[in-house]
Amino acid sequence: MSARPSNVGIVAIEQIFPSQYVDQSELEAFDGVSAGKYTIGLGQSKMGFCSDREDINSLCLTVVSKLMQRNNISYKEIGRLEVGTETIIDKSKSVKTVLMQLFEESGNFDVEGVDTTNACYGGTSALFNAVSWVESSAWDGRYALVVCGDIAVYAKGNARPTGGAGAVAMLVGANAPLVIETSARATFMKHAYDFYKPNLSSEYPVVDGKLSVKCYLSALDNCYQLYCSKAEKHLNGNKINLEYFDAMIFHSPYCKLVQKSLARLMLNDFIRSPQDILAKYPGLQKFQGLDLENTYFDRDIEKEFMTCSKSAFEEKTLPSLLLAREVGNMYTPSLYGCLVSLLISKSAEQLAGKRIGLFSYGSGLASSMYSVKVAEDISERSSLRHIIANLAHISTQLKSRTCVSPSDFSSIMELREKNHHKAPYTPEGPIDTLFPGTWYLESIDELHRRVYKKAA
Amino acid sequence: MSARPSNVGIVAIEQIFPSQYVDQSELEAFDGVSAGKYTIGLGQSKMGFCSDREDINSLCLTVVSKLMQRNNISYKEIGRLEVGTETIIDKSKSVKTVLMQLFEESGNFDVEGVDTTNACYGGTSALFNAVSWVESSAWDGRYALVVCGDIAVYAKGNARPTGGAGAVAMLVGANAPLVIETSARATFMKHAYDFYKPNLSSEYPVVDGKLSVKCYLSALDNCYQLYCSKAEKHLNGNKINLEYFDAMIFHSPYCKLVQKSLARLMLNDFIRSPQDILAKYPGLQKFQGLDLENTYFDRDIEKEFMTCSKSAFEEKTLPSLLLAREVGNMYTPSLYGCLVSLLISKSAEQLAGKRIGLFSYGSGLASSMYSVKVAEDISERSSLRHIIANLAHISTQLKSRTCVSPSDFSSIMELREKNHHKAPYTPEGPIDTLFPGTWYLESIDELHRRVYKKAA
Repeated sequence: MSARPSNVGIVAIEQIFPSQYVDQSELEAFDGVSAGKYTIGLGQSKMGFCSDREDINSLCLTVVSKLMQRNNISYKEIGRLEVGTETIIDKSKSVKTVLMQLFEESGNFDVEGVDTTNACYGGTSALFNAVSWVESSAWDGRYALVVCGDIAVYAKGNARPTGGAGAVAMLVGANAPLVIETSARATFMKHAYDFYKPNLSSEYPVVDGKLSVKCYLSALDNCYQLYCSKAEKHLNGNKINLEYFDAMIFHSPYCKLVQKSLARLMLNDFIRSPQDILAKYPGLQKFQGLDLENTYFDRDIEKEFMTCSKSAFEEKTLPSLLLAREVGNMYTPSLYGCLVSLLISKSAEQLAGKRIGLFSYGSGLASSMYSVKVAEDISERSSLRHIIANLAHISTQLKSRTCVSPSDFSSIMELREKNHHKAPYTPEGPIDTLFPGTWYLESIDELHRRVYKKAA
Repeated sequence: MSARPSNVGIVAIEQIFPSQYVDQSELEAFDGVSAGKYTIGLGQSKMGFCSDREDINSLCLTVVSKLMQRNNISYKEIGRLEVGTETIIDKSKSVKTVLMQLFEESGNFDVEGVDTTNACYGGTSALFNAVSWVESSAWDGRYALVVCGDIAVYAKGNARPTGGAGAVAMLVGANAPLVIETSARATFMKHAYDFYKPNLSSEYPVVDGKLSVKCYLSALDNCYQLYCSKAEKHLNGNKINLEYFDAMIFHSPYCKLVQKSLARLMLNDFIRSPQDILAKYPGLQKFQGLDLENTYFDRDIEKEFMTCSKSAFEEKTLPSLLLAREVGNMYTPSLYGCLVSLLISKSAEQLAGKRIGLFSYGSGLASSMYSVKVAEDISERSSLRHIIANLAHISTQLKSRTCVSPSDFSSIMELREKNHHKAPYTPEGPIDTLFPGTWYLESIDELHRRVYKKAA
């Protein structure tokens, strides 16, 4: 029997997103829908998208090489790499094996882990696996690398403005500035057909929109209640509620659903301990004794709790929605883009010692709620200052993107659709508009073999 | 800091295979190839296959429900379930979520893990993750369930006789009869296009046969040498060779490759310590100083080492090939079918305290070599006797299968091909020929939603 390392968590984090976007208010006009439908109704501002120059492999190549370079890590220091994605372009060969090209020069081939999949949940699964590996007797002292990336595209119509694209890479190790708490981790998994991709030759999912929202909120209820009851065991039975979390971040299909979700947690608090909430909001008395299962589409309840939870939302959640609002739904990296947004919205002083609640959701369905405890140390060379400093470029980079008109966006989507899985194929998208250091797809040969290059 | 549980490994194991097979010598005649091409050249005897009544979800439903029933485990006792497969019928929804239907009645939805993919390697990745979870601080004392399953089918032609189908489920926990050793675990991962599935609308892979063999053997060389050098560190530098393993089992695409692989390990021993081997086989002197990279297709070397390693093969490996020979390549469960075959070929007395070497390979490529230490305890109620006793049905069940003519087999393959991913769809395959307790696909609706039932 040997002891586990302590304070295992996220040591470094890197976020990438496309260099081009479509403006959601322009898209409203182009689609002929009422002004505000996407920007206010969904809470989305811009949507990042990829030309045919980028695929899931290139996104992951880019985010890994940027993480390694920015943090000055050698490929020899990595003992594990797992990719979470639902952007499947090969049923057998993992994205992980494509990433091994980056390791060739270092001579390090001893890197465990492959790909993991369930809708937007794969990144969380990969992260949990990485943390377990570092805590296991198989750990050899090296870092684990967790990569999540996706290209979220929808057929023309209602769902299209909820797309997005991006990737996140996280370096996992001991004595981390962002410690993954394991004492209270709550999971809810259930068979559902809310959003899935049974048409393998298409990039587009099959979505039951209403069921999808219901599944998301039901998973949130279940995870939150289980998280609280597990955490309470470690607190001598003291009640936990939203106050326990300094920040609460969510998988973000669109920002409006996230605001509803924060309100939903207050509804859960109300169900668990009505008196505490009623003391502050006596008007909620009429909702006492309600059954959560019947409230998913109850507008009255939603409205009341949105109002009561408004300041909590602004304090605990809104700062985490920058990337979700500006890039869109990135699927697996969505939740971790929220973490990045949160980290760049605060100073080390404001973050130190704080607890962040995280809700991860993937349709089908798989979901977990867990928490991250931020390290206390804010000395000049602390790992917390380091992880924040290495994200300083995000805001500038977001602003340096190119705005593409909805009609050009639509043509690029048609091109993707037409050439999806075509072989041989040479992409048409420009290379000079990619961010420097971006990996891109150079060609696909007649045997579907893909070749990538790095933009200067 | 807390301590890890000890002796984490496989507590129970279940194997399923199709109730029908095609005879490989009949297939030789039907395909008009020379007699012995499949049976001697590949070393294959029979090939199991599924009608359109079974898909990856149904295979995994069957193997999990059988494992739970045979071992009298409640679904509440499972805290983690991960599926390794390369039989992808949905790009987003995991097989794991389909399996959650089995958990509904128990009310246990708190089950971590989703699906993991890289060709035939997914099962091993899931197993490593399960062991790490049990050793991690997130472990709550419950079992982890590792499921691997695949349907291996090839287009008409050379590769078709190397198909197969099946699933394995393994219960992972502490104080196991089969302990997964973590002190020396060697992994070799590299970017390769040896076997992959870029044509998402087809069940068939793209295979570069020669490259595939080269990649397999090169991965084997690398894993074995790294395993040995890691294990030697724990043995005060004492040299390790094949003698260190009482049994050596391999991912088995076809049995002949496995025999060549065992010979290859002796070649590696020869490269690492020529004197030890030369003392026994002085005729090998002419091969001194050779470079492994140039020997993958050297017939002389292969032949000489096949001869020298014949008795080692018969002792350490042959007993593990029953299912590989009688069912064919099951992809992810292949290696674990070898473990099952080994367990039913020996008595508890013969197995107790022994070390089994395992080589897992998935094209693309991902590979690992690790070892299992069998528990010493062979008392009447020991877990070792229990795990063996629960596999007693395998031999009888293999013999009770129905032999299907190559022409009927071919028609069934055509039916699969024609209806692959069709929706709505009602399978035509018979239900009464399935083994009792088999889950089968009842229907697929117009939205691709699949419904399963259990055969009486």
